[in-house]
Amino acid sequence: MTQRSPLAPAAFPDLPAIAGVTTRVARARYKNWDRCDLTYVELTEGTAVAGVTTQSKCPSPEVEWCRDAIPLGSARALVVNAGNANAFTGHRGRAAVEAIAAKVANHVGCLPSDVFISSTGVIGVPLPVDKAEAGLEAAFSAEACGWEEAANTIGTTDTYAKGARTSAMIGNTRVELVGIIKGSGMIAPDMATMLGYIFTDAAVEPKLLQQMLSTSNRRTFSCITVDSDTSTSDTVLAFATGKAGNARLTSMDDAGADAFHAALTDLCLQLAHLVVRDGEGASKFIEICVNGAESDASAHRIALSIANSPLVKTAIAGEDANWGRVVMAVGKAGEPADRDKLSIRFGATQVAAGGLAVEGYDEAPVVAHLKGQDIQIGVDLGLGEGRATVWTCDLTHGYISINADYRS
Amino acid sequence: MTQRSPLAPAAFPDLPAIAGVTTRVARARYKNWDRCDLTYVELTEGTAVAGVTTQSKCPSPEVEWCRDAIPLGSARALVVNAGNANAFTGHRGRAAVEAIAAKVANHVGCLPSDVFISSTGVIGVPLPVDKAEAGLEAAFSAEACGWEEAANTIGTTDTYAKGARTSAMIGNTRVELVGIIKGSGMIAPDMATMLGYIFTDAAVEPKLLQQMLSTSNRRTFSCITVDSDTSTSDTVLAFATGKAGNARLTSMDDAGADAFHAALTDLCLQLAHLVVRDGEGASKFIEICVNGAESDASAHRIALSIANSPLVKTAIAGEDANWGRVVMAVGKAGEPADRDKLSIRFGATQVAAGGLAVEGYDEAPVVAHLKGQDIQIGVDLGLGEGRATVWTCDLTHGYISINADYRS
Repeated sequence: MTQRSPLAPAAFPDLPAIAGVTTRVARARYKNWDRCDLTYVELTEGTAVAGVTTQSKCPSPEVEWCRDAIPLGSARALVVNAGNANAFTGHRGRAAVEAIAAKVANHVGCLPSDVFISSTGVIGVPLPVDKAEAGLEAAFSAEACGWEEAANTIGTTDTYAKGARTSAMIGNTRVELVGIIKGSGMIAPDMATMLGYIFTDAAVEPKLLQQMLSTSNRRTFSCITVDSDTSTSDTVLAFATGKAGNARLTSMDDAGADAFHAALTDLCLQLAHLVVRDGEGASKFIEICVNGAESDASAHRIALSIANSPLVKTAIAGEDANWGRVVMAVGKAGEPADRDKLSIRFGATQVAAGGLAVEGYDEAPVVAHLKGQDIQIGVDLGLGEGRATVWTCDLTHGYISINADYRS
Repeated sequence: MTQRSPLAPAAFPDLPAIAGVTTRVARARYKNWDRCDLTYVELTEGTAVAGVTTQSKCPSPEVEWCRDAIPLGSARALVVNAGNANAFTGHRGRAAVEAIAAKVANHVGCLPSDVFISSTGVIGVPLPVDKAEAGLEAAFSAEACGWEEAANTIGTTDTYAKGARTSAMIGNTRVELVGIIKGSGMIAPDMATMLGYIFTDAAVEPKLLQQMLSTSNRRTFSCITVDSDTSTSDTVLAFATGKAGNARLTSMDDAGADAFHAALTDLCLQLAHLVVRDGEGASKFIEICVNGAESDASAHRIALSIANSPLVKTAIAGEDANWGRVVMAVGKAGEPADRDKLSIRFGATQVAAGGLAVEGYDEAPVVAHLKGQDIQIGVDLGLGEGRATVWTCDLTHGYISINADYRS
């Protein structure tokens, strides 16, 4: 991995083991590198699964495979290949996915549809089946590894391993939730972005788990953007092994369902923020809060218009309180807005209100705020009750260097 | 002006005078600089006008003024202020526009609504009325100037003056068309972008001129993007003095109407390309042709998704034939697409077809093409007859330097 993002947490967190989950890694050598690049996770019998995938019209065969398997609700294994996205590879890409599923199903003694597969890396090169099969053989016999090693192994251009945890009480039973995630560029909103995996020992019906994950996704992964570019391979999967022994959750009316759902959302948000903090070239973490829109959906689109504006992102990189660019981004969103009711703040300081600059506002706290790493932009449209929050990072020379100066 | 864009034409073209149009410039000193920044154009009595303006929901008062005046169809003067956009300045901004119109109307002896006004520069600072009035006084008594000086005077971050010409035969009468334009950043599609002014000696009814300009705009200015950021001030105005003496065009059925419309579209396209060639930090001019979409509108949205993708733009900057990023951008556009019917070319070389890479395609011409300054990306969706072409530039360190390294 290259130099850690300046926005990275100090260290990988302490994450508990999840009963019913075993992680192993191996070197499939999908690229000419000497690092583990194949992650193999075995899941206990009876594990429920839910997932959300990219809305790209050109998805990878792995995404199509997961889309077909998720509604069946059960999982026994997960394979993640790093270094090759296997996207846009035609029938050869599909054959590679089927070969991996068959080999794992044979090893575990389960249906191929119980095997979930993701791949991430370069687009357009078929995943080499021989390397995948040799990598799996090595993984089957490898020692079990910890979360940090698994998180490192699913990464590509990531500059640090990303993991998070939370817990919830279901009745008198404490359940644990752990997630790992990868992603740094080609990160965009409006769907499940990146590759993320959530593991819990809670017992949850697959349909309910899906319902919870879909809702959590809309308020977390769908609210982040690095560069407005949506990947062909984005996938977030949640696996619930049921080993905690809680009374199985089957509906949102069950005791503990709300608590579990809140914990799941919290975990998704932690993971989503970790991705933004590793945005390619990022030097600032930016939270954009839009209030007073005509609807929540309208607020969301306006917030994303601001978050994806290269002029806003470069202004923040330059620590410049250029709120005119925020006005521009509100105006171009195509959503209801009234220039003369609009107000804008940086941090806690109102800089524009009622259609013009706040005369004589105190610039000192704004300058201090922009020098920090965590930036807040607040927009109030003054029209209604709609609100949304999205997270992004700034646009710097680092992004250009990563994506233009070196060949893929 | 800073260093000329590497994509700039060798020199400002030779542009003919347009009978009935007189241009003058002056120093209003809207910024602390020693250059002309106020352009004053006087138009002969009976001049027809048409215009297209930004679709931003937060437009400048100048844009609102022009929107109100355009339907009246007649123009006697144009004032362009450079260095201050006067956008998001509340009642003080509106008052400045009204003061300018009143002063010019008084000088010319016309209605205030015959005076067209644009301003460009920083957002959020009210245009100082005293500087505008003093600048106008100076302009009224200044010597008439040529097109290059006017084109320089309307510019802000532009690195070169932009002008173009064309002509058409209406019956036996040759009519001339000249345009000047400014724009470099905050350039986005889906509307008339930037500030552009077109002058012709043709006699054309205002309604017909408007109809022609709106149509030309959709195929030219609405098909370019530098950074996906839509300005609050975008305006293109066309003035027809009628001095050429042709039989006045009143409908598209008139002899010469088609020829004049074709010439107008050609001029708009020349001007639009000049803006892209001065895109902030641009080192490559990129043409994106999408064919085989379900409709022209769908093709247009897909083409813009590619043109606005920072990953595609940085790949071109890096001279990297990374067609996987083009697949990604097609996939994220949200338009009908079938991965397995999609094909992509760089220059004349097909690199992907039928959902996967073309095996063993000749890389040499692709590498040579990408080393050039004029890049073509072709996408065939294989679904229908819809087609569109858009133009953009690459995304380089120059864009970051212009927008992040220096304070506004």
